[in-house]
Amino acid sequence: MALGRRVRPLVALDWGTSSLRGARLAGDGSVAEERAFPLGILTVPPGGFPAVFAAHFGDWMDAPGALCLIVGMAGSQQGWLEAPYCRCPAGFDELAQWLAWVEPGRIAIVPGLSFEADGVPDVMRGEETQVFGALRLLGAPDALIVLPGTHSKWVQVRSGRIESFATLMTGEFYALLRRHSILARTLPAEDAEPHDEPNVDLNDNAFDAGVALALRGASLLHTAFSVRSLALFKRLQPAQATSYLSGLVIGEELRSRALASGSVVVVVGDTRLTGRYARALAQCGAVTHCLGAQATWRGLHEIAARIAA
Amino acid sequence: MALGRRVRPLVALDWGTSSLRGARLAGDGSVAEERAFPLGILTVPPGGFPAVFAAHFGDWMDAPGALCLIVGMAGSQQGWLEAPYCRCPAGFDELAQWLAWVEPGRIAIVPGLSFEADGVPDVMRGEETQVFGALRLLGAPDALIVLPGTHSKWVQVRSGRIESFATLMTGEFYALLRRHSILARTLPAEDAEPHDEPNVDLNDNAFDAGVALALRGASLLHTAFSVRSLALFKRLQPAQATSYLSGLVIGEELRSRALASGSVVVVVGDTRLTGRYARALAQCGAVTHCLGAQATWRGLHEIAARIAA
Repeated sequence: MALGRRVRPLVALDWGTSSLRGARLAGDGSVAEERAFPLGILTVPPGGFPAVFAAHFGDWMDAPGALCLIVGMAGSQQGWLEAPYCRCPAGFDELAQWLAWVEPGRIAIVPGLSFEADGVPDVMRGEETQVFGALRLLGAPDALIVLPGTHSKWVQVRSGRIESFATLMTGEFYALLRRHSILARTLPAEDAEPHDEPNVDLNDNAFDAGVALALRGASLLHTAFSVRSLALFKRLQPAQATSYLSGLVIGEELRSRALASGSVVVVVGDTRLTGRYARALAQCGAVTHCLGAQATWRGLHEIAARIAA
Repeated sequence: MALGRRVRPLVALDWGTSSLRGARLAGDGSVAEERAFPLGILTVPPGGFPAVFAAHFGDWMDAPGALCLIVGMAGSQQGWLEAPYCRCPAGFDELAQWLAWVEPGRIAIVPGLSFEADGVPDVMRGEETQVFGALRLLGAPDALIVLPGTHSKWVQVRSGRIESFATLMTGEFYALLRRHSILARTLPAEDAEPHDEPNVDLNDNAFDAGVALALRGASLLHTAFSVRSLALFKRLQPAQATSYLSGLVIGEELRSRALASGSVVVVVGDTRLTGRYARALAQCGAVTHCLGAQATWRGLHEIAARIAA
């Protein structure tokens, strides 16, 4: 991952609601070391951010000229320091310009982005950096990028800037239906990890059937009930039902994006989830490129390069 | 509510998942007395249905020639006696023909209905009797009827028979989002009764705004997130947020029905909920007739008339 430019040693942090991940990047952008802690911002007491940071990343900051850039909910109202949302369209330059400096020249939080459509705002925090990192990895200035998850983000990039985006609560709807709805009675006992349930193998046929029904056009309000009715008539086995439900919610997400056949979609995330999206996108006639979640470190490296400049 | 025909004294029961309601009807169909108990089928131990019935309605059954007809989940696999689903199209005659007799000639359970579309079955239990009762109250052989609730039913009736129907989990989605999702953090402390929250006054403007956004065409997966983003920018007050969310889910339900402007929709249910639907349907350009939930007793009276005949 060598780059032409050299930048300061970078401590790159992704500090979210439920976890804290960090990477130490060399001046050329290569990852020298990574650390992860279950220390999401909700676990940090008021005023406790400097101490948590020093305890877990203080040694990395001892490197001469070290710079720390942080993405994620650490920049929210409940975080370390609020980094107000930057309005779209926005690119690397805007992010670098609107950093919220915790310690001038040394520790900064990357702002999230906001976008307004139909009189309603939408927001992201952290995904913007993943998107820009993905763009660099792709070497493309234009792309339609999806970051699937609890709250999926669909991001339209043109000329290297995020032009528009939309949040879809796909993973959360899956978890709500799977855990708390009447459908939970039809489904097998819950796996430890919700949404993508990585320890449960996907039943491809059931997943495809869920996607296919969702793509036919009915609302999830209606199609979700089919988990129950199909089970009632013994046409859906409990072991297939979570895959089928996953297909229904992901299919609803894709249908709502109204993709033209042949659309190219870049899916950024962990392999299990990007695999599901690629499978569902194929039913829409879309062409998919999958990228791992390492895009965040690359994005922070690019922002750091702009600060050094 | 006098009718031309005279039928046997009728003990009409609506025995659902969470409640047991009964009415004693005179031979002319008029309601002489009503009772309600928190004795849904989930509270009845295996084999306990005859005893619960005798304890709460035995006195009514002492009337000479008394007939008991039961609708609802008492006819499900977990109920008193399974009454298999009758396939659509179906009318009063099919319901009367396929009664499941607990005690021949004396106590019977009305079958639910099933309907298949796109290779997926849908089911109802109890609503079919409400629909037929509503038809009699309307004096119309054709109608588009919606019974809003935890699981809303949209029912197309032609020539006095239910031709097709669809279930939408609107009320349940509302409750899931309101109680268990990330949006719950934005919403005020929960009222004792979910979904329609009858003790909370509707904020008309917020409700209308939710309906309007949903009707514009984006999926609820996306529009639901606006509860959070609008609150983040202080453009939605907590006191308005439940009304706004209610508008989003009901609006999604209506959009998915693709109603032509000028459509006539009959809404059957309690006043609070039918009022919300009428308000939302007006935004779709639909014409609404509202009817109270008493339609069940009228429907059972009509079935009883066919047995007596």
